[in-house]
Amino acid sequence: MLGKIEHLGIAVKNLEEAEKRYTQLLGVPPYKRETVESEHVITSFFMAGPNKIELLQATAPESAIAKFIEKRGEGIHHVAYEVEDIVAEMERLRQQGFTLLNEAPKHGADDKLICFVHPRDAHGALVELCQSI
Amino acid sequence: MLGKIEHLGIAVKNLEEAEKRYTQLLGVPPYKRETVESEHVITSFFMAGPNKIELLQATAPESAIAKFIEKRGEGIHHVAYEVEDIVAEMERLRQQGFTLLNEAPKHGADDKLICFVHPRDAHGALVELCQSI
Repeated sequence: MLGKIEHLGIAVKNLEEAEKRYTQLLGVPPYKRETVESEHVITSFFMAGPNKIELLQATAPESAIAKFIEKRGEGIHHVAYEVEDIVAEMERLRQQGFTLLNEAPKHGADDKLICFVHPRDAHGALVELCQSI
Repeated sequence: MLGKIEHLGIAVKNLEEAEKRYTQLLGVPPYKRETVESEHVITSFFMAGPNKIELLQATAPESAIAKFIEKRGEGIHHVAYEVEDIVAEMERLRQQGFTLLNEAPKHGADDKLICFVHPRDAHGALVELCQSI
């Protein structure tokens, strides 16, 4: 089964502006920035209680974040659930007919192993499974 | 400041189908259904660790959920943050230039006082403040 919402990913055009706005909204500053070269994004992380808010800005037009913003504008991009054993959860979901967007876990931001689930299998929500390394 | 993600709201066309799918995804069944007449929605709630997932189905065409689905399809509709004192948080955000979508807290599902913040002030994310009654 899936655990807590590890983080909520929000696609933004300008990370610096979004960091200022989310610092005002949440009442705390971001605790780190991290570039994920493989995904062509810069990210910024905030804590909200036991959860995180991840702001994502594209660094290249082929980034999924750039394509998302082009199509739908800025907004909530994905929800990541914490899992203890990502390989077991991937197998569990596969057996129940979920389409996984990567065959094997890959490295994501914030020292995580991650796997995405197709949004059509979760009523339009892009789901990420997320295991701490 | 805002607390944990109290819940994540997901707009769906068919609550019964979505409940089945989210039971498979999360690995737990919903713990309750609730109708919110004033918002023209039926909701279904799941636990994900300390967080909740709220599925929302419109019961009338004028429902915000019906309009959201018509425009963008099913998907993540809003993120609700837990607050201890909703009136104080509303005032704090107002003073920082955030546009609140209701003047005073209103009653939401799951025994909460709630207030929405305009998505343009949170980079496209519809934000709900949420205080337990």
